Amino acid sequence: MIAKRCQQVQPFYVMDLLAKAKQLQASGRDIIHLEVGEPDFTTPQPIIDAGISALKEGKTHYTAALGLLELRQAVAARYQQTDQLSINAKRVVITPGSSSALHLLMHALVNPGDGVMLTDPGYPCNKHFVTLVGGEVLPINLSAADGFQLNVEQLDEAWKPNAKVLLIASPANPTGTVLSQDRLKQIVLWAKAKSIRLIVDEIYLGLHYDVDAVTALALSDEIIVVNSFSKYFSMTGWRLGWMVVPEGEVEYFDRLAQNLYLCAPTPSQYAALAAFSDDTLAILELRRDTFQRRRDVLLPALKDIGFGVATPPQGAFYIYAESSQFAADSFKWCHALLEQAGVAITPGRDFSSQSAERYVRFAYTTDESRLLEAVDRIHSYQRSR
Amino acid sequence: MIAKRCQQVQPFYVMDLLAKAKQLQASGRDIIHLEVGEPDFTTPQPIIDAGISALKEGKTHYTAALGLLELRQAVAARYQQTDQLSINAKRVVITPGSSSALHLLMHALVNPGDGVMLTDPGYPCNKHFVTLVGGEVLPINLSAADGFQLNVEQLDEAWKPNAKVLLIASPANPTGTVLSQDRLKQIVLWAKAKSIRLIVDEIYLGLHYDVDAVTALALSDEIIVVNSFSKYFSMTGWRLGWMVVPEGEVEYFDRLAQNLYLCAPTPSQYAALAAFSDDTLAILELRRDTFQRRRDVLLPALKDIGFGVATPPQGAFYIYAESSQFAADSFKWCHALLEQAGVAITPGRDFSSQSAERYVRFAYTTDESRLLEAVDRIHSYQRSR
Repeated sequence: MIAKRCQQVQPFYVMDLLAKAKQLQASGRDIIHLEVGEPDFTTPQPIIDAGISALKEGKTHYTAALGLLELRQAVAARYQQTDQLSINAKRVVITPGSSSALHLLMHALVNPGDGVMLTDPGYPCNKHFVTLVGGEVLPINLSAADGFQLNVEQLDEAWKPNAKVLLIASPANPTGTVLSQDRLKQIVLWAKAKSIRLIVDEIYLGLHYDVDAVTALALSDEIIVVNSFSKYFSMTGWRLGWMVVPEGEVEYFDRLAQNLYLCAPTPSQYAALAAFSDDTLAILELRRDTFQRRRDVLLPALKDIGFGVATPPQGAFYIYAESSQFAADSFKWCHALLEQAGVAITPGRDFSSQSAERYVRFAYTTDESRLLEAVDRIHSYQRSR
Repeated sequence: MIAKRCQQVQPFYVMDLLAKAKQLQASGRDIIHLEVGEPDFTTPQPIIDAGISALKEGKTHYTAALGLLELRQAVAARYQQTDQLSINAKRVVITPGSSSALHLLMHALVNPGDGVMLTDPGYPCNKHFVTLVGGEVLPINLSAADGFQLNVEQLDEAWKPNAKVLLIASPANPTGTVLSQDRLKQIVLWAKAKSIRLIVDEIYLGLHYDVDAVTALALSDEIIVVNSFSKYFSMTGWRLGWMVVPEGEVEYFDRLAQNLYLCAPTPSQYAALAAFSDDTLAILELRRDTFQRRRDVLLPALKDIGFGVATPPQGAFYIYAESSQFAADSFKWCHALLEQAGVAITPGRDFSSQSAERYVRFAYTTDESRLLEAVDRIHSYQRSR
């Protein structure tokens, strides 16, 4: 009785692992969690305080479907601040998380049979957003040797005549790859030449290291950018994100939003008004530095014990590491690692078809000492086999 | 470049009216708002306080996709309290509003080409939830003379061989109709005999007058019930609802939820833990009484000046009234009424194909004196034409 499209939707494989990890913890085991894509930090206090104030003032009714005008203006102003970009606040659509944004976009842009180009590896839900609306996933195979950067040759190779949408992410999950400005420009031009809609997932923007990363909005008014308050702003549970869309299409997104979810959570929207304040940004920049330090500790430690990471990841809070040196099947190995060593990491199967069994993802969402202990445990486990 | 399915999605027509009403207000006009389907009450203080406490405690991370276990248990316990029903908490799925629940259900249950039976009049988004997943709307024409009750003859008439799902609501929007227990039983049996999945939208349950209204869950474990914290609990902006589904299908909804929205807003979930407390319920019952008094004031006043309401509505906070005595086209008439008399009501076009032009919906979400003033203004406007 369950629809076919729904039977094809796979669970996040990491969820089974997470459930097992919680069981082990309940039985008294010490588990190091490096599997979940969520900052370990609580939301910064100024944002929490703004949420509390909104609740005290009784801000509990619906907002407009496109979001609070003040928040849309604040997001637009943020682009001025970070990228000296003048974005009309009308183009900003507040969404209940970026999941809803991506899902809404597929409804809005993809006819049944249309091709949607997605990177492999990539965010696991994207392929489901495509198939749920009857689209066809056109995978773009990225290369570890190239630091999982995306190039025009790969796009040409993945392209098929039904291609309508190209969805990319920078910084990317699970690789942490930040697209270089040069690559991004080439991709924008390629998409324009092919009349393909380009969506850029920038939900990890702000969490980038060593390199400058700027919004793709700087390159074109025709692309769609998806962003979120979850990652850089540590607001996961509030379910709040945004899109910037071409001005002429706002009305369609408005209608879809009215139907699909009415509006983003009101207390979250008021709380997020404090997300761009100096106080908040000072906290967030310290957290960014912390993530960078963790990466700088974890990456060499992983390489020391034999993981393959061809190019240092420059963003997000992930390291996508080749584990085939340790086991042929990373899925089984992750389960063994959890049970035997008490370390939870995510198998490649959640992110990839091509590299599923040879890779694992580490989320450095715990402190440095625990990261190093995790590496020690993995090392000991491997030596004991 | 916008997908066909999306171009078919109509806006809520009332939104244009609402925009115009706000313009008029901004220019200094006094507008009486009877158009929006939202309680005028702020969320009860115990729920707000629970939300504030959760924020103070830093409850800002993701929850499980199915929702906080404590909240699922609290919802299950509520069925014990109101209906002496023992519902396994595993069957309770917490959702970001009932919109997301209905949308998710259509993804889960409807294959392209499947028929979904919907009442006309009914909630405007339902037809879009169906067409967005490629389903076919099979309208069931309700009769004002029968108080917009649904009967088996109407179901037989509307049925087609591709029918897979029947979605009904009680109390219903826009009619306020509460299905009698007898009718509900017949509908459950009819759906079972036809092997059709029955979804019962109970988001206005609790807001019913004169009659007892009980959950359809009492009649079958195979149906799906959708509910919400928005209406009876006055929590619209928090975006929180729930479903009760057959136990064997929970895993599918879990996967879809993981992909479509990850989880419902965390602060909202913690706040809702206070929704079933004695303090909160005492406030909510007073509000229910207030709605009943408003209905009892508004209904005779509308009939006095010539609106047609064959049967008193027994639930929700709506009166769906025949306006053909005043104008052939209720859409144009609502706009004229707003401009000339400063009264905002919703034209039938949002809810119906068959009765679109002959009906309007009044939401009694403002106090009694304003309700009576609205009726006076309509009366004066009609006499002046």
